[in-house]
Amino acid sequence: MTGDGGELARLRAERAAIDARIKALTGAVEGPAVSPLAPAAFPPLPVIAGLETVTANSGTRYTGRDDVLLARLAPGTVVAGTFTRSSTRSAPVHRCETILAEHAAGLAGGLSTGRGFGLVVNAGNANAFTGRNGEEAVARVTEAAGAALGLPGSAVFIASTGVIGEPLDHGRIAAKLAEMAARLGPGPDEAAARAIMTTDTFPKGSSAEVVLDGAPVRIAGIAKGSGMIAPDMATMLVFIFTDAAIDRALLQETVARLTDRTFNAITVDGDTSTSDSLLVAATGKAPMMPILEAKDPRFGAFEAALCSVMHDLAIQVVKDGEGATKLVRIVVEGAVSDASARAVGLAIGNSPLVKTAIAGEDPNWGRIVMAVGKAGEPAERDRLRIRFGDLVLAEAGWRSSDYDEEKAAAYMEGDEIEIGVDLGIGTGRAVVHSCDLTKRYIEINADYRS
Amino acid sequence: MTGDGGELARLRAERAAIDARIKALTGAVEGPAVSPLAPAAFPPLPVIAGLETVTANSGTRYTGRDDVLLARLAPGTVVAGTFTRSSTRSAPVHRCETILAEHAAGLAGGLSTGRGFGLVVNAGNANAFTGRNGEEAVARVTEAAGAALGLPGSAVFIASTGVIGEPLDHGRIAAKLAEMAARLGPGPDEAAARAIMTTDTFPKGSSAEVVLDGAPVRIAGIAKGSGMIAPDMATMLVFIFTDAAIDRALLQETVARLTDRTFNAITVDGDTSTSDSLLVAATGKAPMMPILEAKDPRFGAFEAALCSVMHDLAIQVVKDGEGATKLVRIVVEGAVSDASARAVGLAIGNSPLVKTAIAGEDPNWGRIVMAVGKAGEPAERDRLRIRFGDLVLAEAGWRSSDYDEEKAAAYMEGDEIEIGVDLGIGTGRAVVHSCDLTKRYIEINADYRS
Repeated sequence: MTGDGGELARLRAERAAIDARIKALTGAVEGPAVSPLAPAAFPPLPVIAGLETVTANSGTRYTGRDDVLLARLAPGTVVAGTFTRSSTRSAPVHRCETILAEHAAGLAGGLSTGRGFGLVVNAGNANAFTGRNGEEAVARVTEAAGAALGLPGSAVFIASTGVIGEPLDHGRIAAKLAEMAARLGPGPDEAAARAIMTTDTFPKGSSAEVVLDGAPVRIAGIAKGSGMIAPDMATMLVFIFTDAAIDRALLQETVARLTDRTFNAITVDGDTSTSDSLLVAATGKAPMMPILEAKDPRFGAFEAALCSVMHDLAIQVVKDGEGATKLVRIVVEGAVSDASARAVGLAIGNSPLVKTAIAGEDPNWGRIVMAVGKAGEPAERDRLRIRFGDLVLAEAGWRSSDYDEEKAAAYMEGDEIEIGVDLGIGTGRAVVHSCDLTKRYIEINADYRS
Repeated sequence: MTGDGGELARLRAERAAIDARIKALTGAVEGPAVSPLAPAAFPPLPVIAGLETVTANSGTRYTGRDDVLLARLAPGTVVAGTFTRSSTRSAPVHRCETILAEHAAGLAGGLSTGRGFGLVVNAGNANAFTGRNGEEAVARVTEAAGAALGLPGSAVFIASTGVIGEPLDHGRIAAKLAEMAARLGPGPDEAAARAIMTTDTFPKGSSAEVVLDGAPVRIAGIAKGSGMIAPDMATMLVFIFTDAAIDRALLQETVARLTDRTFNAITVDGDTSTSDSLLVAATGKAPMMPILEAKDPRFGAFEAALCSVMHDLAIQVVKDGEGATKLVRIVVEGAVSDASARAVGLAIGNSPLVKTAIAGEDPNWGRIVMAVGKAGEPAERDRLRIRFGDLVLAEAGWRSSDYDEEKAAAYMEGDEIEIGVDLGIGTGRAVVHSCDLTKRYIEINADYRS
């Protein structure tokens, strides 16, 4: 690349040669150990009162690492969730949707009086498109988890990530759960974040704390996705825990709204998993009076803290995007609505031509014009303004008079690129995160059979 | 790749080494001379009575090749067209839309009594997102073409393809037109198909003949796209000419309907150009009574012939897709409607995960399940049936009992792959064509700055 300097170019070439040698020896494409965009370390996560977690290796797919996470959520916990909109969603997703519906129907005054919940997650097999066998596997695993936790199977959430279309060897997972339940301890932690990884290159965690009624309320979350270094492994799973006491319907509504601004505003390749799941569990164990409605003055602080955790985890998912070398922040303003702005942002973030230009460190604003045009949203050529960082490239339907190719090219050399689009026709705004599209993406997804 | 054999692998490696050497010497990525999916030769095209064409080099961008096409369509010609739906479409597209609207309003009984039309096409600069300068360029070029052809500028269609956002040096084109008009001759021909290419790797032409009222009626078309080997060059331009006599509204309605099944049912990368244009001109010079309505018994034969030309040109565009090594035919059946089937087909054809799997010769049907699921169209997991060629991979929500990985992998080694999806819930059907997504696509679109 133009701006990499000789040293980086040399190192990349050497790495490519080593990759090639490994591939020749093993028949497989070796991924980079860790995404170049990964954070330096896994962040410290606070213990969430009312949550216990434990991990184990079940041997269903991986050896030498844990691949099952079991969690117990204390009595009084309420749970909210959002899921993939795929019409071919997996058996575990269907199960979670059912539990949430029953949960919502069975609550007294929006707060739980029940026995709490379980959660079991396995990595390596998505249990998706596995027909009746998939439903059977869900039943067996949740029954075994329930038995181990002293709960009915119908109170156990389940999530699976990994290969699509392979029958899940549920017996191996079920057989582990009693032993795991005996080891349950404070959570969540890095072990939990690692146990749900498939081919992610780093574990993902985030937390926030907010003081309500004079005491700290904690939020901690873990996520996996979308390092799809082996095929079929793409799925985003996110589990967020808080000791806050909050009305379930309010939590659900808040999670759904924030999802649109976080996990539904990121893209790696525009492909949607059959298994994407986000669960947010509030144990109610913090020393606070429950938040029952959005006009509660404490709600705004809680919402902001939850949003920060969801946003941080969403960004980490993009930073672990397959082959990603640059994080792209797309800020769309001046749209007719926020939804319209998000649609334009996703059209830009999903465009292979935009993403390859960024990989090539090319300030190719013509492709942004193209992507805005194809979004199918209201836009007027002569009001459009496009910037990369602070550099205005195009405005008033035309290349900016300030346009400086050299400055723009220098800007594109950074690890994080901001594309600003002002449509100039309204007040709608959205921020979408994406990554670049590199040869490594193709290697990961095509060449593994070589 | 597994099935390429040692010889092909060696040749590919050698070509890659040569590509790298060229890149080192020139600073640019050299494309393959011709797409591996290109036809052996440009097909012979029949002369269309009432059409004259001529080409020239204007020097606006290319040297050593013609980059301007001028055509004259005789009095009596009717014209239909379809265009990009981009909200940032180019000045030439706006002009064509205006001419067609005036044409439709000014006709006597659906047939033309006017002076005919001109058409001028330039390659190398799309005149898109060029603001008022773009409109000025359109006015200058069409006025000059009109003057050369003895027509008002308002009767001259215009199309431009090439870089987005660069002002078009319209003076160079306008200065050529009088000289070109003096050389007009029978058309269309290979020279016309070549003059509209940007970075296409082969010229695209197709023709059909149908006997109506005992005499041959001819259809001949040329197309360019979507070889985007240099950046910003993606645009599909298609010009089809026939000597048929046909009502303009009927022609327009037919072209629009067939476009949905041909040019709107292909994808290379899901990105939509600011300049895509299809014009179909019927000169009415064949010795036939005009076709005035769809129930005319001759209409079906004409429509079938037109469809075959449109289909053939559309497939050629995909075969020249950037980096394409495989043509993918996606047949979706059993959908709730044809439109729903097409949406599912495009979700599959645009999926980077499906396209990279095909590049990797991987019969990865789980990704087809994913793409069906994300299409947002009605689908039921347990009724879905997926085949590659004649091999059924999945049915009834589950891997097929006949599934044979080895046979499926062998099938994927072919140059042309058929993916069949039966949704099993209706009678809607569509066929979509796409190509694979290879490292070459990334090279073409990202690495050119290296």
